[in-house]
Parts: sequence; structure tokens; C-alpha cells
Amino acid sequence: MGRRHASNARYKVGSVDLIRIVDAAPSVAAEVGESLNVAWSTEFDDLLTDPMVDAVVIAAPTPLHAEMVKLCAAASKHILCEKPIALDVETTVEAIEAARKHNVKLQVGFHRRFDPAWRAAFDRIQAGELGEVYQFHSSHRDLKPPSLERVRASGSIFVDAAIHDFDIARWLVGEIDEITTFGAALSNPDQLGLDNAVSVLRFASGALGVIDNSRVAGYGYDCRSEVMGSKATVRIGHPTQTDIEWLADGHESVDFVRDFAEGFAEAYGLELSDFAEAVRLDKEVAVSGEDGLAAFVLGTAAERSLAEGRTVRLNRKGTGRTVKYSMA
Amino acid sequence: MGRRHASNARYKVGSVDLIRIVDAAPSVAAEVGESLNVAWSTEFDDLLTDPMVDAVVIAAPTPLHAEMVKLCAAASKHILCEKPIALDVETTVEAIEAARKHNVKLQVGFHRRFDPAWRAAFDRIQAGELGEVYQFHSSHRDLKPPSLERVRASGSIFVDAAIHDFDIARWLVGEIDEITTFGAALSNPDQLGLDNAVSVLRFASGALGVIDNSRVAGYGYDCRSEVMGSKATVRIGHPTQTDIEWLADGHESVDFVRDFAEGFAEAYGLELSDFAEAVRLDKEVAVSGEDGLAAFVLGTAAERSLAEGRTVRLNRKGTGRTVKYSMA
Amino acid sequence: MGRRHASNARYKVGSVDLIRIVDAAPSVAAEVGESLNVAWSTEFDDLLTDPMVDAVVIAAPTPLHAEMVKLCAAASKHILCEKPIALDVETTVEAIEAARKHNVKLQVGFHRRFDPAWRAAFDRIQAGELGEVYQFHSSHRDLKPPSLERVRASGSIFVDAAIHDFDIARWLVGEIDEITTFGAALSNPDQLGLDNAVSVLRFASGALGVIDNSRVAGYGYDCRSEVMGSKATVRIGHPTQTDIEWLADGHESVDFVRDFAEGFAEAYGLELSDFAEAVRLDKEVAVSGEDGLAAFVLGTAAERSLAEGRTVRLNRKGTGRTVKYSMA
Amino acid sequence: MGRRHASNARYKVGSVDLIRIVDAAPSVAAEVGESLNVAWSTEFDDLLTDPMVDAVVIAAPTPLHAEMVKLCAAASKHILCEKPIALDVETTVEAIEAARKHNVKLQVGFHRRFDPAWRAAFDRIQAGELGEVYQFHSSHRDLKPPSLERVRASGSIFVDAAIHDFDIARWLVGEIDEITTFGAALSNPDQLGLDNAVSVLRFASGALGVIDNSRVAGYGYDCRSEVMGSKATVRIGHPTQTDIEWLADGHESVDFVRDFAEGFAEAYGLELSDFAEAVRLDKEVAVSGEDGLAAFVLGTAAERSLAEGRTVRLNRKGTGRTVKYSMA
Repeated sequence: MGRRHASNARYKVGSVDLIRIVDAAPSVAAEVGESLNVAWSTEFDDLLTDPMVDAVVIAAPTPLHAEMVKLCAAASKHILCEKPIALDVETTVEAIEAARKHNVKLQVGFHRRFDPAWRAAFDRIQAGELGEVYQFHSSHRDLKPPSLERVRASGSIFVDAAIHDFDIARWLVGEIDEITTFGAALSNPDQLGLDNAVSVLRFASGALGVIDNSRVAGYGYDCRSEVMGSKATVRIGHPTQTDIEWLADGHESVDFVRDFAEGFAEAYGLELSDFAEAVRLDKEVAVSGEDGLAAFVLGTAAERSLAEGRTVRLNRKGTGRTVKYSMA
Repeated sequence: MGRRHASNARYKVGSVDLIRIVDAAPSVAAEVGESLNVAWSTEFDDLLTDPMVDAVVIAAPTPLHAEMVKLCAAASKHILCEKPIALDVETTVEAIEAARKHNVKLQVGFHRRFDPAWRAAFDRIQAGELGEVYQFHSSHRDLKPPSLERVRASGSIFVDAAIHDFDIARWLVGEIDEITTFGAALSNPDQLGLDNAVSVLRFASGALGVIDNSRVAGYGYDCRSEVMGSKATVRIGHPTQTDIEWLADGHESVDFVRDFAEGFAEAYGLELSDFAEAVRLDKEVAVSGEDGLAAFVLGTAAERSLAEGRTVRLNRKGTGRTVKYSMA
Repeated sequence: MGRRHASNARYKVGSVDLIRIVDAAPSVAAEVGESLNVAWSTEFDDLLTDPMVDAVVIAAPTPLHAEMVKLCAAASKHILCEKPIALDVETTVEAIEAARKHNVKLQVGFHRRFDPAWRAAFDRIQAGELGEVYQFHSSHRDLKPPSLERVRASGSIFVDAAIHDFDIARWLVGEIDEITTFGAALSNPDQLGLDNAVSVLRFASGALGVIDNSRVAGYGYDCRSEVMGSKATVRIGHPTQTDIEWLADGHESVDFVRDFAEGFAEAYGLELSDFAEAVRLDKEVAVSGEDGLAAFVLGTAAERSLAEGRTVRLNRKGTGRTVKYSMA
Repeated sequence: MGRRHASNARYKVGSVDLIRIVDAAPSVAAEVGESLNVAWSTEFDDLLTDPMVDAVVIAAPTPLHAEMVKLCAAASKHILCEKPIALDVETTVEAIEAARKHNVKLQVGFHRRFDPAWRAAFDRIQAGELGEVYQFHSSHRDLKPPSLERVRASGSIFVDAAIHDFDIARWLVGEIDEITTFGAALSNPDQLGLDNAVSVLRFASGALGVIDNSRVAGYGYDCRSEVMGSKATVRIGHPTQTDIEWLADGHESVDFVRDFAEGFAEAYGLELSDFAEAVRLDKEVAVSGEDGLAAFVLGTAAERSLAEGRTVRLNRKGTGRTVKYSMA
């Protein structure tokens, strides 16, 4: 992810100047910095003390996120932080508070909100074109699982992958009252464990939501949403690589994207561009720290629902951008 | 439904001769009989005593189904009965036993199994092309609710509509161990009541299933299924009326069918044709009385899950065509 | 084609009774007749003298069509004749006149007009929903060429295959003033000869038309049309076998039909059903002998345009159902 | 177009630094320069004498193109010039020669070659996946005509719009021997004149090509290509704005783009990026001056074919990147 953001900053997002690369591994820092022709080092502090740096993109391992957010905030650097901010609520809240206290922007990396298709659906829902929402559906499936090592490091499918769907559900439909999660370990139960899951949501509005996830879809990386309303229904998604159809041997086929990086290449650039604009114009960021917290709490609620075989209720304090989720 | 089957028997299914129409209402019987140019009467007994009649299609109100099945069986007439056979398990079992005792065919009217798209998917799944199944999805939504009167008469959305999805789930994926159902009353809560529902299935194989139903989809009659497997995934469905695309005013659009009759016009003819072939060649019918019972039990299990806010387990006795479902 | 019509008459079109099969080859007549459980013989005269026979479907080799039409007409049997009626204009006109003189229905086998997609487009064009037509396009391509023997017997790609597109062009858009045809012999020039062709039409209305044909499309049987109008544009076609999508190995694919028989299975039944209704209700048939003549003249005009490297103008006498086409 | 390129250079293409804007109209130059925060002036000479400027993008009125190319070449500035270079062959050749003599890059603005869909098709054709090409099709249609004033200024539909299709035909399939063009003036014959056209191509390989153009498609901006080969067929195009489907009122619809700028937004950025890389790495540009000349000659050949009602043959001298087209 760090390479992706750096490359976007360097080549794709003209409104951003890439100033420097920091990675604890000298070989990585050197390779990326040299290939992009920018300064590089292994010291996080170099970012904090560089007066040319207005903002920092944090794509480090998750356990380091919160501390880095606090350091950036203290150094008055704006922050775009990959999700999740931390693996517990308390640390997440502390990081959010630090940004607020030091008056820096903190945006969480929910790239899907910037994809033109999801954005277009959001705009039309906001404009009232769907009427009252009845059902929300999201399918989010990986071609194949990451390495078992990476699976262990990145947490459950709920805080690693479904967290994006929880965020999209809140963004498109609204706040969530209940979650009931079902899981299955089918392809490689001994090592991979749970690889397919279904979560049913009850929104505060009364609408129903269904999220399905899979680590072993096999056919491609698939990411689609549907929102059914009283006036209209919208289907969102773009599984194919490019707009060509291939006709041969009795079939007409399109090619799936292979992973999220390919599927959301445009969205990552737009995310960075939007963050830069929020910094430049001193606007609210599009995805707040509280948004990151809410999706993370939903991920842990899914884990608990699955473990305890019951519906888990969510509590909320406050509303809007500063809403705070917790499990009931 | 009676008119549809009669018209198919008369005009579309060349292997069937329509002999006579019976309806308790003289005006209906007369109108249908005369328009199709066949004998008609108001006495069910006329069917039973007519030696030209080999088989009877029962499309009467549900409460009459079981008794009619028993009468037909006693008169050695084969039976194609609309679902459900009865609104309780015991009566359903009695009807099934009557057909068995008198050695007549009893087929239940799950027309979707005869639709070419679902049939093609079934064949490829049976051939092993999907590998092990991981997830099953079915969306089954009506454009708008029937009259409140008809809603009251036809039972809950689960035994009236979702029953087809339960049957398709068993047929495509296999037996079901658990069901958890969620519902919402959103469009007209006082009168229509529950109008949107989600049921999560746990198959005996461990696979997960999701069925969503709506009485108020608004955009059209929609009926689609998806089966995700270890080797391939198949999507099934045909929402559009005919293969034309209409391009105007900045849009490219296709027309949805308006109801199940339009969506499954071909399937109804194929269902009748297949039943006739089973009778003629003395083969097993494609959908057994026990299939009808199983889907009905799943419908009542969905009702109980919703009422009690918990997962309902299913019991089964026997296997294959004579499997008997009951709630645990 | 004979088998197809016979099977449809026997099994699919309930409003038709199949009375008898005639084929000059005893083995064919016997096999078809016995498999369909109807009388069969090798004498065409048996059809003419059978008082149970109201109408005859002619699917013999093209050189026999016209004589059979005349015999049927003289025997007061209505006729559904496969296209073309004859391989020259004079014989075609004689056959049409014979049917008129004896007051029998003569319908030409342009099945595509009965396909629900083309029919729906036709209805909407007739209703004025397209406005003024600007462009017509038709792609009509075979998976692979028939045997060289059959290619020689069935005439050029223009009178054998494109003839359907010429008919559809007239039906959807209107009469045609000019045709300019281009051809290429690419896959097997020595034996197969011309295997790809493009014909440009100028309609009497001023609209432009393009028809492309191929004997070697390779990927499947493909048949699509498009009509672009001042108010809307419609795309017509159904290349896929059934409404399933197959997702595997990075692709999402649908299956093409393999030939016209698979692509237009429903249309053939509807064609026969419509013909039967015209006979029963004494209505005008949907496709007249003059329609068959017009498309045949367009096919020969395409051949001439190609041979002479120039645009060929068409003359017409009369209008509507009795219009007579000839080359200028 | 100038604004588009300038905005891309400033915001979207990170590998390019926008140095200055020149426009003869002070208000335009000022507005664009100030909105993009770069130097601006009304003197073309300012570009030539600015040592920071490595390359110039020419998006001036067509009659000025060739002279500007020569001035840039003489000043050793690389050039990305909108098509066509000039409205006659001689001037076009002079401009090409000037660039060659001064050893500067000259790229012509055929943006469609950079669209990911067309690029993917090109790559697979180059890799031999299509086998031998049999047919090429391209549909290129505007939602509605530009103002009559602009129609007069920009030349015929052939040198203004179809020129892109001629370029794509050469790029995807190869050199062209013959062109036969048909036109119709249907929507507003007195003022707009010809508004629909069909051009049939004969490629040097023997393959057939069809290009249709319209200024009055009405439903949206549509741009699609198809290449049919002996091994496979590819369909290329992306008429829709974003990947959402809208379901309402019995329809499922997608939104067309409204014009080429919307349809090829990504392609314009990739075109500029690719040009910048050719300059930076001293590589051949992707679209040569001779490519621009060839497509222009094809446009004028289409005009002549239409005017004279005959097929026009093309002559070529040389091969590959330095091929020179002329009319026979």
C-alpha cells in the first residue's frame, strides 16, 4: 500500500508533491525512493521534522498506526492513515483525540468511497432518488487467500476485509443497530480457518443489510453492492479489468480484476487527491477517524456474534461525524 | 394458475391433451372451457370418473389441495399439485402417503426447476463443474405486493414466495441444517406487515446460503440465484422480458418482467411437459411430494426463527427422494 | 428443417395436429414418422389427397419448392414454404400467382420475424417510438461453414443467409432503393470462396443500412440487429443459450448458441403457431410470397453488385403486401 | 481541448510540469493560467523562448497547427499536436519534415489509442490471439451535432470525427487499400447537411471494415469497435459513465456518456503521460506524424468517394512508421 500511495503521489495526483519516503527497512526505502526519484530514509522522525512536509500517509503495519498518528499530530502534520487505526477501541479513540487536539486532519483509508461508481450511487441516494431504503447487499470476495502468515497478521476477515463493507453500509444507508454473523471454514479448515462469512445488519432505519465475504472466490476479485429502495434500486460494482469482451470457443467473456489494487486503482488516486484538497482548502476530510472507529467496532461485533452464536447490538453516542460506536 | 396450466396443456404442450376443466365457479369453468374448446363442469368428481383422464393438475385454493390429492390417488389419476400441498405437515404427509399407496405420480409445482437457466446450472453443478459449494444466494422479489386480501389468504412471504427459494437451495446445493430469518415491515407496516426478509441457511455440507425476499421491489419482478463453488461460480436469472436494449435520453435500458408468470412462462410449459413424460414413461417425477414437504417445513421454520429471534435447526429422516424434514 | 417443423407440430404447437410426414427417402420418412407416431409415406401426392390435411409445410430442397407450392395450391392446401420459393424470379412469381388463384395461404419461412426480441422491436418501431430511422445494422454470422457440398447446393451466402437480413431490413425499416455489396474470401479461398461480406443499403426513406455476414465467425452463431432512430435506438439479439453466467479462472462468461436452430428454437414454434392461426381464422399470413420474392431479389442484387463492383438499384411495382421487387 | 490538456498536465499527470499557457485571447489565457496557477501570455513566441519548456501541446484552430509545428520544431520543442496537422497533404508533409529535420518528437492527438480498452484489444491482437482478421467494425456517434458554426469550421464528419476511426482501423488491423463511403442528410438536411455516414474499407490483408458515424445518435455519445478474427473476436467500448445500474419503473438502465471528453477522460491523461515518457526517455512517439497524415488522407478519400459515388483506392509509399498515404 505504501508503494501504491507513493507512486500515486509522484505520478498520478498532480496536486500532490511527493517529498520523501520513510520505511524502517533500508532496502525498501532506498528502492522506492530511488525509483520515484525522491528523498528516502529509515527514520520516521525525518518526516516529522521536514518543514516541506504538510501531510503524511501512514501505510505501516497496523500495530504502529496509532502511535504514528499521535506523532504526526504532535508535529502538526495532516494524516491519511490506512485502516484500521488500531486493533482496540481505546487506542483508536486516543489517536482520534490527538488529531483533534492538535487540529490536524485525520482521514482513514476507506478507498471505496472514492470509486466513481460508489460515489455516483451515494450522490443519487443522497439526492433522494432511491426513496426509503429497504435492503442493502454487498459481496466482497478475494480470488484467493493471502499467505497464512499474512492472514494471521492482518486479523480476522471481519476487521481486515469486511470492515470496508461495514463502512460502505454506514455511508450509503446509515447507522447500524444490530449485526448477526455466520461463518464457515470450508477450503482449508485446519490452516486457513474461516474463509466464508455472511453478516446480516439491521439499520437504525429498520432496513436490512447482507454482507457476504469470501477469501476463496476462485474466479476473481469481486466487489459489488446493491441498495434497494422504495423508488429505485442501484447496483454498484466493476469486476472487469477493461471494457473489452472476448468472444471465442463458444463463449463471450470479460476478465475479472485479480485483486483490490487492480479493482480500485482509480479510487486510490482519487482518495489521495481528495485528502490533499481537504488539507489545502482546510475542509473536513471525507472519512473521519470516527468512521474508522465505527467500522472497526462493527468488525469486532461480527467476531463476537460469530463466537457467541447470537445477534450483537451496537450502541452509539453522538451523531454525524463524531458518532462513537461501541458494542452493547 | 389453473388458466395458465390449462392454456399450456391446450396450446403449448403438444404431448398433452386437455380433456376437461373443473372449477367450482360455473362462470369460470364455462369461460375457460369454452375459450379452450374443451368439456367443463363444476364437479371435481367428473375428473375422477372420466376414463380419458390420466392425470389431474390441481391449482385450487391451498386448503383444498390435500383432499383433492387423496381423491385423485384413490381414483388412480396422476397428480401435478401446486405448492404447498397443505398448510400443515401431517396433512401433507397423508397426501403423500395416499399417492404412494395408490401408486400414482405426485409432482409438486416448483416450476423454477424447469426453467432452462436453473436447469443448466443444476446440470453443471451435478457434473462437478463447480467443485465444492461455498455460498448460495437467491434474490426473489415482487414488483409490488398482492392485494391485502390475497396476502392474508396465501400465508406468510415464507410459505408463499420464499418456499421456491428453499426448494431451489435444496435442489442446487443439498440438504439444510439450520435457518435464521430476519424480517422488516417497511412500506406499509400497519396493513401489509413484513415486506422484506433475509434468511441465512447452513447447509449440511457446511456451505452458507442467503435468501432475500421482498414484496415491494418496485422496479420489477426479480429472481436470481448464485452458487459459488471452489472451481467456479454460476449466476442464474433472467429478469428481462425480451432480448432488446433500448437506447434513449442518455440511457441504455432493458425491461424487467412484471411478475412470475411473465418471468417463468417457458418454465410452466416445460414443467407440464416433464410431468406428462414421467406419466407416459412411468418415470420418477422431477419434484416429489417430499420435496414439497421439505420446502414447506423450511418456510415454517423461517416463520419460527423470525418469531423467536433465533436460529432454528431442521431434522431429517431418510435421504434422497423420500427424505422427511421437520423442525428440531 | 423438416424434422424441426414436424417435431414442433407434434410436441410444441398445441394448436396444430401433425397428420402425416412425406419424404422421398423411405428411411427418413419412416424414422421421422415413427418417432413422432404419425402416418408417413414417400409420395407427395398422399398429402394432397388426404382430406384431414388443411395445410402443408414445405421444407424440401429449394429446386422443388415452387412445383410443390403449385400442387398444394391446386389441391387447396395452405402452404408454409421455406425460403426461397425458387432460385429465379419468374418461377417465384408463378408460385405466388398459383396460391392467389386457388385462394390458399402462402407464407414464406422467415422465422426471425417471430422471435420475441425482433417482434418487440418491430412493435415499438411501428408505434413510432424510434421516430425517423437513421441507420439499420445487422450482424449475422455462422460459427463455421456448412460442408462444401451443402455450400454448393444452397447458393451464395446472399440468397442462403443474408436473405434473412434483407427481409428483416424491409420489415423493420421499409423498402430499399439501392444495395452495394463487398465480399472477401479469407479462410479457405480455394474451396469455400467468399466467406465474409458487407452489404450497404439505401432505404427509400433515405436511411442507411449495413448488413455483415460471415460463414466463419468461429466464436458462435451470432445474430443481432440495431435500428437507430431520431427518438431512440434499439438493439436486438440473443446470442446466449440460457441466462446463466459462468465465473471461473478470472473470467465471467456466457455461452453462445451454436447455430440458428438453437438460436431461434422458440421462433420456429411461434412461426408455425402464427401460420396455423392465419389458416384457422382466415387472416393474412405474416410473411407473404411477395416478401419472399423481395428478399430473394435483394440477394441476387447483392450478388450482382459484388460481381460488377457497383451499386445496384432496385425497382418496385405496387406497394404493401403485393409489392414486386426487381433489379433496375 | 487546450483547457483539458492544461488541466491534465497540472493535476492528473504527475510526470509533467505545466510551465505556461498561451492563448491569443487574453481573457482565455488569463483565466486558464490563473485557475491553474501558472504563467500565461498571448504570445506563442513566449513558449518558444522559455528554456523551461521542453515540449508544447498544440490545441489551436486547425489552420494554425502546421505553422506552429514548424516554429516549435525550429525552437527544438517537442510537439503533441491535435489532429489534423493541416487540411491539406502538402502542408502536413512539410510539418512532419520540419519535426524530423530538427529532431523533435511529433505526436498526433489520437487519444483513443491510449484508452485502456482499445489498448488491451491492440495488445491481444498483436500477440496473435485473434488470428487472421476477417472483419473490423467501428461505431462512432455523437449525441447531437455541434453548432452549425462549429460544423462549418471543423470540416466534414470524415476529417473531424471519422478520422479517429480511420486511425483505429489502421492501428488495430493494418493498412487500407480501398474506401467506399455512403452518406445521408436526414435530421436537418438544409442546414446540417450530411449527418449519417457509412464507410466500407478493404484492408491490404483482404479483410473488410465498416465504420458508421452519426452526428445525431440522440441517445448518447457512443464509441465502440469490434475486430473479428479466425481465432477470436474482440468487442471494445465503454459507453457508460460509471459502473452503476439503475433499476426503476420496470427498467434496468445504465447511463451513456454525453460526449468524447467524458468518454475518454482517462485516455487524454494517458496520452499526455505517454508523450511525456517518449520525450523523457527519447523513445518513438506512439502516434507519428505519418499516422496523422494517413488518417487525414483517408478522411479526404471518404469525401471523394461520397462525392463521386465510387470506391477510392489509396496509394502508399514506404512502410511502418514512415508510410505515406495518398489517393490513387
